[in-house]
Parts: sequence; structure tokens; C-alpha cells
Amino acid sequence: MTTHDLPTQEFLEVLTSVLGRVENSTIALHEPDIGTHEHKIVAECLSSGWVSSVGAFITQFEKELSKITGAKYVVATVNGTAALHLALHSVGVKPGDEVIIPTLSFVATANAVAHCGAIPHFADSNTDTLGMDPTALRKHLAAITSKRGPDLLNTKTGRRISAIVPMHTFGHPTQIKELVLVADEFGLPIVEDAAESLGSYVGDKHTGTFGRCGTLSFNGNKTITTGGGGAILTNDESLAARVRHLATTAKISHDYEYVHDLTAWNYRMPNLNAALGCAQLDRLAEFLKHKRNLAHKYDEALKDAKFLKFVSEPRGTTSNYWLNTVRLVVPNLQTRNELLTGARSRGYLCRPAWNLLHQLPMYEQSPRAELPVAQLLVDSLINVPSSANLGS
Amino acid sequence: MTTHDLPTQEFLEVLTSVLGRVENSTIALHEPDIGTHEHKIVAECLSSGWVSSVGAFITQFEKELSKITGAKYVVATVNGTAALHLALHSVGVKPGDEVIIPTLSFVATANAVAHCGAIPHFADSNTDTLGMDPTALRKHLAAITSKRGPDLLNTKTGRRISAIVPMHTFGHPTQIKELVLVADEFGLPIVEDAAESLGSYVGDKHTGTFGRCGTLSFNGNKTITTGGGGAILTNDESLAARVRHLATTAKISHDYEYVHDLTAWNYRMPNLNAALGCAQLDRLAEFLKHKRNLAHKYDEALKDAKFLKFVSEPRGTTSNYWLNTVRLVVPNLQTRNELLTGARSRGYLCRPAWNLLHQLPMYEQSPRAELPVAQLLVDSLINVPSSANLGS
Repeated sequence: MTTHDLPTQEFLEVLTSVLGRVENSTIALHEPDIGTHEHKIVAECLSSGWVSSVGAFITQFEKELSKITGAKYVVATVNGTAALHLALHSVGVKPGDEVIIPTLSFVATANAVAHCGAIPHFADSNTDTLGMDPTALRKHLAAITSKRGPDLLNTKTGRRISAIVPMHTFGHPTQIKELVLVADEFGLPIVEDAAESLGSYVGDKHTGTFGRCGTLSFNGNKTITTGGGGAILTNDESLAARVRHLATTAKISHDYEYVHDLTAWNYRMPNLNAALGCAQLDRLAEFLKHKRNLAHKYDEALKDAKFLKFVSEPRGTTSNYWLNTVRLVVPNLQTRNELLTGARSRGYLCRPAWNLLHQLPMYEQSPRAELPVAQLLVDSLINVPSSANLGS
Repeated sequence: MTTHDLPTQEFLEVLTSVLGRVENSTIALHEPDIGTHEHKIVAECLSSGWVSSVGAFITQFEKELSKITGAKYVVATVNGTAALHLALHSVGVKPGDEVIIPTLSFVATANAVAHCGAIPHFADSNTDTLGMDPTALRKHLAAITSKRGPDLLNTKTGRRISAIVPMHTFGHPTQIKELVLVADEFGLPIVEDAAESLGSYVGDKHTGTFGRCGTLSFNGNKTITTGGGGAILTNDESLAARVRHLATTAKISHDYEYVHDLTAWNYRMPNLNAALGCAQLDRLAEFLKHKRNLAHKYDEALKDAKFLKFVSEPRGTTSNYWLNTVRLVVPNLQTRNELLTGARSRGYLCRPAWNLLHQLPMYEQSPRAELPVAQLLVDSLINVPSSANLGS
């Protein structure tokens, strides 16, 4: 491509070269691909009459996910937020605790912590992976914590820190192995928020399977969708049993009596949604291939760019390229907004990274590390249209 | 019918006369009726590509429910528990509060209170309606509460009581007008748990529309199903707006930015489930008619019974007869269990009322009124197969 004097010109030329010109229409950021196979499987589910919280497709969906991710146990849930809430609860997060999460994440990560009655404690990101930075986290934890018996205390707030939640941003695997080392050093469990990273691997190990447990999301904008849905991944048999019990009102199995032994939730994925999920999983390899093609096209189009750079999968990992991401070489919020509005006005429905969680009104009093990198990322990242069918 | 010396014989004869003999099979307690219309509408939804938290069927489903119930505002949710949780939150239930609920209810009623960080406070039932007894409640509240400023305190526990949750048991309207009077006397809002009573009316006013707000459930065992789903009904515009905002991660509308202004939930019903709901609502009148036919058959078959009595809709109300209910004239838990096991072993999948909530381990320390009637109801009630198609 030719170079330009303005980032917006360069950005538009990249979008046009990869996606074509848009006339009287828009190209979505990420939309599901639902075809005849999905129609067939969902119709099967309707015909069976089993559309609710019990059914063969739920079991099949969990089995398929187990095969794909390598997690021994999978529990399908009503959505990703519910999965993360239950996962945090199951590793022992209690009201009044603090949980380490990246400030650069979707708000659900913080909300799930709050749903446990706990307080998010924000960590900074790594420039390259866009995920939680292990070096910065180790330094931060060393500076602000001390041990009291088995507990790790935040010495500034007096509260217990009870988990770390790394997140695989836009599908790119974060430095999860390094984060596991940090977690082990401080005696904390890791709950991996893999909401965005179905089909993403570190080496040949699937994201979401490095921590005590991990969670997935199948919202409509994800790599595969169940309408709304999520899942918990774990290799821990008792954790899986506990999570499954808590997701189904903690009902004790009985021929006809209604005995429940814990305050619990109605968090199970309905069979109808699982049926759609089964059909979508059958096509996951196809989706991932097309998404990789599309990523390659963006990468090529940005090779000689002056103002912009493509965000590639971190070395040693395989990303699902859920949302392809472009970054400004020189972070600048105003320029980022010009690129966004320029692209959107031409029908390319690009979006920025999320507003940082520690800046939202309900979390602005929450504890945090220094967060310089996250702010630079917000000022420089733009997600570009990434639906699988754009790469077919 | 002829009379018998044993209640079990009498019960089996009633079941056989209404449902026919069951050979190598079972008759479910309540199963959904899903036909070609549901197939067509769900396929439409799949073809549109809009299967997730935004879509035309969600809007349509809410509009249809508004028309049917007369509630000005309807917000569809991921299930009935989520609806009740948000409803309680929206009327101002805070952590540490107590909320009056019937001890005779499904566990979700208590769990939704607990999800607010509040404590269920159990009330007794009325023998005839099976719902919360207004006279007993008034007496109980008068005995144990005092006002402190605008708050009603439980003088025994020192905690604030912040709402009353009547429930329309098995679809039979409870004495909601009388309960509204009691609530007004004590300055408490009513949240109506109408999970079981879609299509049930007091006079010509739909259940769930008498309190500050009400909630519905569309679980697989309900009169209509969305797989999993629920809804909040209200005539209060600002409450509706708040609930809708809280159900969708409290995201502030913006062209591309991700700003959220409250800790919130991912509680919206997916469009896929709403599509099924729209199709089912189109058939609601048919289902209600068939269910009424079936109720009439049970009523007739029990006319001359010696040990058993049919539970009819309370005077002045129209019940959806969600679960037809038979009661032992002389409450006796052992006899009840004999009837249940006898019927179930012959393929009639009857069930008892729920174990009382104040007897479950996680709620056995909760405050309560005297609860003599609820226990007698548990010892005498049996739900019999009630699917709409059994009355067609």
C-alpha cells in the first residue's frame, strides 16, 4: 500500500483493501454465521420437546467442549458472567475479598467479582499481549501484600486477596504460564476468563485450562454462539461437581422431593441454546480457519503502514483472532476517535477497546496497581470487523 | 366413582379415569407443547442471524406480554430467578434486609432474596388459596415490627424489612388485594412472584400486576416456555427503565464507547428464546383452555371422593391451573407419600408440594412467623399431571 500523511487515510485504505467498499450498508464488528446445519439441530431439539434445563444437547455440548479444550470437566451456563461468578465462588472468593482483574476488560469481569460481594483490584496490561502483565503484577503484589496464616492480605485495605483473573484479550492468549507462577508464589488460585478465546492455545494447551478453572462465553458476538451462554472448564472433579450443583439450585437428587442444601442459582444453559451450540461447535474449525485468513489479510494490508500496526498472536501461541485489532504506533485518544468515526461513517463498524474498568463510576474507588500501559492501549487500539465469513 | 377403603386406591382410580391407563410409559407432570408454529418462528429467528441479547423477538415478546397481562412495562430476562432478583433489587431491597416470603414456595423465591444479600423471613399460607395468608401476616407484622423513620424494623433481629413477596401457588391467585392492604399498612412494597401464574387473574386483572412489580417464569415446566426465561412486569416507568438498564450491564448508550454506570448483570433473555416465547404466546389461549378442561375433569372425578379433594381456583379468580392439585382431606405425610409412590410406580409422575423453605439447611436460621398451615399443606397436597395436551 501507499503511505499517507494522515492515520485516518491509512486506516480507511486498509479497511477498503481487506473488506471492500461498503455501499449503503454496514459491515458488523462480529456477527454469527448460522446456516442450514444450525437450523437442522435446533429443529431436532424443538421436536424432542426438551428445550429447558435438562436435555441431551447440554450433555453433548459439554462433551464436545471437553474434547476441544482438553478440560476434563465442563459445565455449561446461562452466560459468561454467570460462569465467572460461579467459578469465583467455587475457588473460595468471599464477600469483602479483593480479586485481581485486568482493568482492560469487558465490565462482566468486574461485575462477576462484585456478584460474589467482593471488590475488583485492578492490574495493568502488557503492551504486546494486551493481557495482565505478570512482571508488573509480581512487583505490585510484593509491594502491597503480606501473609496472615493461609491468607494473602492487602496491607493497605486490610482485605484478603483471594483470586487472580487473567483474561485473554480479543482472543490473544495472555502470558498465562508466567501468571500461574506469580499466583503460586502468592498462594492464589487463578480463574481464567477465556470468554473471548475459544480456539486459542498456548503451545498446544487450550486457554482456560491453566488455572484452577476457566470460563467461556457464547454470546452473539463470540466465535461461536448459543444465543446467550457460557461454560466453566476445570480438571478438578470436586470443583466441577460443586459448580454443577450450584448452577441447578443445589437440588439433591430425589425421586420426588424438593430438597436443596445450599443457597444457589438458576445458571444452567437451556437445552435449546445448547442445541445451537452443538451445531456451531461442529463448524468451529471452519470458523477458526476463516478468521485466521482474515487476520492474515489485515496483517498483509498493514505491513508497510506508517501510523498503524496489526496486533499479531503472541509468540508461541495460537490466537482465534476473535477480534482483529489494529494499534496506533503513537497512542493518541483523539486520533483513535478520528479513525473510529471515520471508519464507522463509511460503514465499517469498528470499535475501541473498553473504557478502563477502574474509571467507571462504580469501580473508581477500587484498589489498583499503577496502570500506565492499559491507558496507552486504550488510546491506541481499534477492533476491526472480524466475522468468520469475511475470511471465507 | 365408587368409594374405596384406601386413599391410594381412590387416587389411582381418579388418575386412571382422567388420564387413562399407562402402559410401559409415563405421563409427565407438565411438559411443553411445541409444534409446527414454534418450529417456524424459531427458524425465522435463526435465519435473521439475531439470536442473542438484541433482536426483534425480544421486543415482540415483551409487547405481547404487556397486552396479555395489562402491565405497562415488561422486561424479559434470562429466567424467573433473575427476574425476581432484579425486581427485589429495584424496589430497594439491600444487603442485610429481611424480605417476607411464603415458606411454601419453590426455592428460587428464597434464593432471589439471598442474591440481594438479604434474608428471607417466612410467612404462613392460607389453607384455601395455598398462598400467603394476609390475616396471619398482619398479625405477625404487628407483633414483631416497629417503625424507625421510614423503615420497618424487625424488633427481634434489628433488621429492616424491605419487601413482601406473595406467590401464586401452582397458578392459583393468592389474596393479593388483601396483601396489598397489609403491605400499605406497614409501608412495604409488594413484589409479586407470578412465576407460576401466567394467565391467572383476580377479577379481570392479571396476577403480577398488583404490586410495585411482578415476575414471571418461562421455564420448561411452565404454561408457556422459552427454554429458560422470565420477565418483570410493572406499571412504574422509572422502575422498568432501571431494571432494563441493570439487566444489560448498565451500559450507557453510545455510538462506540463502553461506559457502564452501575454494577449490573447480564440478565437479558436471548432473542432465540424470545422467538420460542412469541410462538408459545400465540398459543396461550389454546393452552389455557385445554388446562381448564383438564382441571374440570379432575374436579369431576373427585366429586364423590372420600379421602381426596380437588383444589379449585379461589372464588373471584381465574386460575391457569398450571399444576392441578389434589389434597388429602386429612393431612398425613405418610399417606401422601404412599399416594405419590403408588401413582409414580404406575407411570403417573405426580409430585408433592415443595419441602418448606424454612426447613432447608441454608434457611433454617431465618426468621419466621408461626407456620402451622404450611406444614399441613405439605402433608396433604399432591400435584397431578397437568400438561395442556392432556386436556385437549
